[in-house]
Amino acid sequence: MSAVPSSLAPPVRVLLGPGPSDTPPAVLQALGKPTVGHLDPYYLAIMDELQQMLRQLYRTQNALTMAISGTGSAGQEATVANLVEPGDAVLVGVNGVFGGRLADMAERAGGEVTRVERPWGEVFRPDDLKEPLARVKPKVVAIVMAETSTGAWQPIEEISQLVHDAGALLLVDTVTALGGISVEVDAWQIDAVYSGSQKCLSCPPGLAPVSFSPAAVEKIMNRKAKVRSWYLDVSLLASYWGENRVYHHTAPINMTYALHEAVRLILAEGLDTCFARHRRHHEALAAGLASLGIRFLAEEGHRLPQLNAVSIPSGVDDGFVRSELLRRFGIEIGGGLGQFKGQAWRIGLMGHSARPNNVLLLLAALEELLAEQGHAFEHGAGIAAANAVYSRA
Amino acid sequence: MSAVPSSLAPPVRVLLGPGPSDTPPAVLQALGKPTVGHLDPYYLAIMDELQQMLRQLYRTQNALTMAISGTGSAGQEATVANLVEPGDAVLVGVNGVFGGRLADMAERAGGEVTRVERPWGEVFRPDDLKEPLARVKPKVVAIVMAETSTGAWQPIEEISQLVHDAGALLLVDTVTALGGISVEVDAWQIDAVYSGSQKCLSCPPGLAPVSFSPAAVEKIMNRKAKVRSWYLDVSLLASYWGENRVYHHTAPINMTYALHEAVRLILAEGLDTCFARHRRHHEALAAGLASLGIRFLAEEGHRLPQLNAVSIPSGVDDGFVRSELLRRFGIEIGGGLGQFKGQAWRIGLMGHSARPNNVLLLLAALEELLAEQGHAFEHGAGIAAANAVYSRA
Repeated sequence: MSAVPSSLAPPVRVLLGPGPSDTPPAVLQALGKPTVGHLDPYYLAIMDELQQMLRQLYRTQNALTMAISGTGSAGQEATVANLVEPGDAVLVGVNGVFGGRLADMAERAGGEVTRVERPWGEVFRPDDLKEPLARVKPKVVAIVMAETSTGAWQPIEEISQLVHDAGALLLVDTVTALGGISVEVDAWQIDAVYSGSQKCLSCPPGLAPVSFSPAAVEKIMNRKAKVRSWYLDVSLLASYWGENRVYHHTAPINMTYALHEAVRLILAEGLDTCFARHRRHHEALAAGLASLGIRFLAEEGHRLPQLNAVSIPSGVDDGFVRSELLRRFGIEIGGGLGQFKGQAWRIGLMGHSARPNNVLLLLAALEELLAEQGHAFEHGAGIAAANAVYSRA
Repeated sequence: MSAVPSSLAPPVRVLLGPGPSDTPPAVLQALGKPTVGHLDPYYLAIMDELQQMLRQLYRTQNALTMAISGTGSAGQEATVANLVEPGDAVLVGVNGVFGGRLADMAERAGGEVTRVERPWGEVFRPDDLKEPLARVKPKVVAIVMAETSTGAWQPIEEISQLVHDAGALLLVDTVTALGGISVEVDAWQIDAVYSGSQKCLSCPPGLAPVSFSPAAVEKIMNRKAKVRSWYLDVSLLASYWGENRVYHHTAPINMTYALHEAVRLILAEGLDTCFARHRRHHEALAAGLASLGIRFLAEEGHRLPQLNAVSIPSGVDDGFVRSELLRRFGIEIGGGLGQFKGQAWRIGLMGHSARPNNVLLLLAALEELLAEQGHAFEHGAGIAAANAVYSRA
């Protein structure tokens, strides 16, 4: 048998990738507080508070709003696996990796899946959905609001009415959206929504906030077939998060502490202030990147402030830049995913990572590495352009 | 919108229930260390170390040994959902809540499930399985090694040969076993095994160590139908935990830190020393409880040292005792589950909770509350009996 390793001493990074984002000190402290039992009255009170805060975050009155005990992908599967019954027609919008994953999950749930596609980096217009809605007559329409693989920002409000007019439930991926841009579950009539803790909420990965409308709950509670996953069966989870506190699984106590603190910090800042902060740093970063001759992948007018997906300039080595950013500057940015692999960088300015110092540091580091790679640009232009945005009122 | 709640200030409990157990300070500290990215070279090295330590813990050489990103129940479903294909005959031993859950999960995976039952508190003898194995010809046999609802300790070695002779794979629940009693995955030829972080490993809940034998991996990689859960699909998870590090989901970084530290502490103590510690404190507690006239539920010779399930003495109010233990002494013990609801207490001495101070404190507190309830016993007898065990060499 091998020797026992040493205790951990993780390096301090600047997390500017597609998640996790930097965890604020108060959230790390919450994480390390003493573990109590999962049926302890103190813990049950914390769950109540968390549910109430998640409702504020999602801007919903949905009773069934809670955190799934897994990462964002578990939240994704929880919404899909509960809403989709074997044989259900399901329409999925696919314009990136995460739309594709929705379709995969819906098939595993037994759904008859039809994919509607758009080129990566573009979003769906209502007209893209009209014909497939009429043809497929889906029971569920699933779409990604913030495509983490492309940085595209899908408007939800304008398609919601269409979906409901067609008699379908609307399921929306807000993994990268929640906490960075407005998500209006009630106003937009979203029926099932999920997110992850490690994006704009700046909590470590491991929990997935979800919310279900009364119509979604009705479909779930009247399923003919059991949900294919016991762990993610919302009818069982609802009894644990509901008044009766029926034991299901042992909740991730300390992660719940962390999410409680993370969401609390966002609500204390104020949602609209938080969204404005994300927008401002995005504008500074975008101005800086433009000055370095770097182009965005998502179409103009539909770019997520919190996830800046850009083209790697020609002649610049992806591996060199990302590994040197990490090695010399401690900065993590993301590479391309799926069909953008090797061609894109994904720069996150999410939650606690969305700070002016990070924008300036990244531009300074990028300027150095791009110069080493022989990329032509005016030295100092990136930082100057970002500072020009910051000096505006 | 409601006001924002205050920051958390959890009470310090003495966790002597069926889990979570007390988290040691070093594990809480690991949990609160800075988050790095899930593809950071530092994190990948930590994953490698964790896998190697989990192999030592499970006493296996299985390459596919890893932590599922969810609680023990997620690990349970990961083993069941991957090993069981639609139409597979599955034999499940049910002598408590968690055996019943195995059967439920196997059905959701599409298995044709046959339950073999034993009274709660008893275990299966090889003879109990011979006839059903011959009749059902299962592809998978699933059984619980440490039934958390009854405190019964199921021997595995003596049934393993039978199961393999019948051509089936052996799936074993070691949620409450791992780290408290010896689990010999290779010596006993277990094909799929799972556990939870919050029992004898004394890490907060949120991760589930699993391991699959080469035969199990072969069945999984040759499935005709996709696993019904994308999140728990081991063929995808193997690529992330394997050499290629193919992105699947964002791993729970900080929870991985905590599990790394928790397992490290156990291996530093030494597995056999750790098991002997659990046995010693169980003997002290059992002697103390006997002196108070409290009887165990599990049959003699098959009692788990780490999970002491006992009958509530007649005339004693379950709710009074458990709530006063928590309110006046900060001690959590568990109530009965399933058919033992209201009739049993489950006293965990798991991992970091298995310390002499906890045994003496619990006996002292119980003596006080039992006296208030009019239960007859010789005052001080429980503590004296426990101390007599401790004073033995």
